[in-house]
Amino acid sequence: EFIAVFEDLRDFVVDEVNQKYEMPQEAQDHIRRMLDYNVPKGKLNRGITVVHTLEAIKDRELSKDERYKAAALGWCVEWLQAYFLVADDIMDQSHTRRGQICWFRNKDIGLNAINDSFILQSNIFQILKKHFRNDACYLQLLELLNETTLQTELGQLMDLTSNPLDGPTDLDRFTKERHRLIVQYKTAYYSFYLPVALAMIIGGVATDKSLGVARSILVDMGIYFQVQDDYLDCYADPEVLGKVGTDIQDNKCSWLVVQALARANEDQKQQLKNNYGVDKQECIDKVKQLYKDLKLEDVYHEYEESTYKDLCQRIDSVDKDPELKIPGEAFYRLLRKIYRRSK
Amino acid sequence: EFIAVFEDLRDFVVDEVNQKYEMPQEAQDHIRRMLDYNVPKGKLNRGITVVHTLEAIKDRELSKDERYKAAALGWCVEWLQAYFLVADDIMDQSHTRRGQICWFRNKDIGLNAINDSFILQSNIFQILKKHFRNDACYLQLLELLNETTLQTELGQLMDLTSNPLDGPTDLDRFTKERHRLIVQYKTAYYSFYLPVALAMIIGGVATDKSLGVARSILVDMGIYFQVQDDYLDCYADPEVLGKVGTDIQDNKCSWLVVQALARANEDQKQQLKNNYGVDKQECIDKVKQLYKDLKLEDVYHEYEESTYKDLCQRIDSVDKDPELKIPGEAFYRLLRKIYRRSK
Ligand SMILES: [Mg+2]
Ligand SMILES: [Mg+2]
Ligand SMILES: [Mg+2]
Ligand SMILES: [Mg+2]
Ligand SMILES: [Mg+2]
Ligand SMILES: [Mg+2]
Repeated sequence: EFIAVFEDLRDFVVDEVNQKYEMPQEAQDHIRRMLDYNVPKGKLNRGITVVHTLEAIKDRELSKDERYKAAALGWCVEWLQAYFLVADDIMDQSHTRRGQICWFRNKDIGLNAINDSFILQSNIFQILKKHFRNDACYLQLLELLNETTLQTELGQLMDLTSNPLDGPTDLDRFTKERHRLIVQYKTAYYSFYLPVALAMIIGGVATDKSLGVARSILVDMGIYFQVQDDYLDCYADPEVLGKVGTDIQDNKCSWLVVQALARANEDQKQQLKNNYGVDKQECIDKVKQLYKDLKLEDVYHEYEESTYKDLCQRIDSVDKDPELKIPGEAFYRLLRKIYRRSK
Repeated sequence: EFIAVFEDLRDFVVDEVNQKYEMPQEAQDHIRRMLDYNVPKGKLNRGITVVHTLEAIKDRELSKDERYKAAALGWCVEWLQAYFLVADDIMDQSHTRRGQICWFRNKDIGLNAINDSFILQSNIFQILKKHFRNDACYLQLLELLNETTLQTELGQLMDLTSNPLDGPTDLDRFTKERHRLIVQYKTAYYSFYLPVALAMIIGGVATDKSLGVARSILVDMGIYFQVQDDYLDCYADPEVLGKVGTDIQDNKCSWLVVQALARANEDQKQQLKNNYGVDKQECIDKVKQLYKDLKLEDVYHEYEESTYKDLCQRIDSVDKDPELKIPGEAFYRLLRKIYRRSK
């Protein structure tokens, strides 16, 4: 049913490109293919969260219209993610994404994928205008999407510049504070806060206070999610994860290297300096051995359990505050999906 | 004075990145440098047009506040153009722009420029929110900018796919209708219609009718402007133009090749097929000789004079319709800037 809404929105977008914007058949075909390739191929957790959160807020079955509009906003989040991912894969020079080759690696696409990513973003405003133009919350939805977009771009900027393109590696930049900034901005806002906030807005329970409380919990949940991502990049079974991690050789400001640096003695720091960000198996192995010596797996499991406990406590106190009108279950549903995940 | 507004808006954007979005000094420095490099280096005609049009509409000196807000919207147009140009240069693999090397060609930037182009676009919404949040026209401004962005992206799509990346050249695609679609969408809307429409909206004279009349004239003026661009690419003195044209070897759907194909006999068509889009001096020379044989310079001058006459007539009838509340002078000011231009 959620997929059916995508097909409907895609057809609407392609139809506007044709009817309203005069584009010939080949341009329509291109956009349809680009959307099918890039928008609905993920796990769709972000998108479906809008529907589930609205259900939790209303605490009843949604009407057909409510379901459709929540799903449409969910797809806006998926469209936004597609916009980021198409571009991120070019910037990271990645090869595969979601089990298929990256969009820009298709022979007939190349760097034109940049313009496709732009079109993906513009589609969001076509969809919003079509379905929310006459709603009081239209402007608030627009502003939230714009703000979240900027936040994610700033996170990308921090991620892309955590090591200079044209200079030597500088491990001093890999601090806990910088890691927090990167993951909060590049991942947490759009993946966790945005879907819930969109549902709160159309559900009529968005006040400065309730949004602030939700933001605080969801940003921390999003940071936790990205720490897991960093951990799994090194420790997950590639068969289960669906890819082989490359954060070490890619010189990424990963949670693991930040923890390692915070615990390493001078000799170990020098080891890291010599081997991190070098695309050779022996260097990667040395870094992994260092992680082992520093017992980072234990550090991670402690982090996971204490973060989980902390989030549960905060969710429970939201649940007890009737003024907030947002049930703890909305947050628990997300937390359960990620707690102790192995992929 | 117009430049001073840029500096003010840039400082505001950088300040929000710092205060509201917690970004460290290096990220602020990066964004400031990126803005200085990419936003204010053009001729600024598009931006200043917003101020001039508002003056023409009000038919009096503008108040300080009116001037500032018109200038801020003018800079939004320049910011939007920067967003397109940073990305366009990557997609076209260009080397220079506005007398400096393209942003992505800087050693420490590279493909991270894609994320910079995203940030440029997001800045527009920071600026709009800051200065127009409390105005009744805020949503209309937002929607116009979103719509113009999509139109320009669709024009880029048509431009980028006017010949397949991975297949043989197909001159059959270079029709008058396709050329009109490309230039109307990729250039005319954002360069001519957008600045005037923004001024009409804040000037309080934007109705469906008045915007429709303005759009019709300005879109045709924008097409005329891009036809000049295509012509100058081949015929202007490179010293005067500031660059050496490359449309022929780049296989561009230029007004010249479209006119040539419409006039060529079978033999000449074959000549074009063999030589157009080939990066060799002798092929370029053969295409240029063909243009000469087909008297395209004369065709261009006839097009320019008849288009000018037609636009003047239509502007005069706008001037005579008091219901429209937009003086012909607003359009003439733009037309005079481009009529018979040589660069
Ligand atoms: Mg990536
Ligand atoms: Mg990346
Ligand atoms: Mg990762
Ligand atoms: Mg170009
Ligand atoms: Mg181009
Ligand atoms: Mg040109």
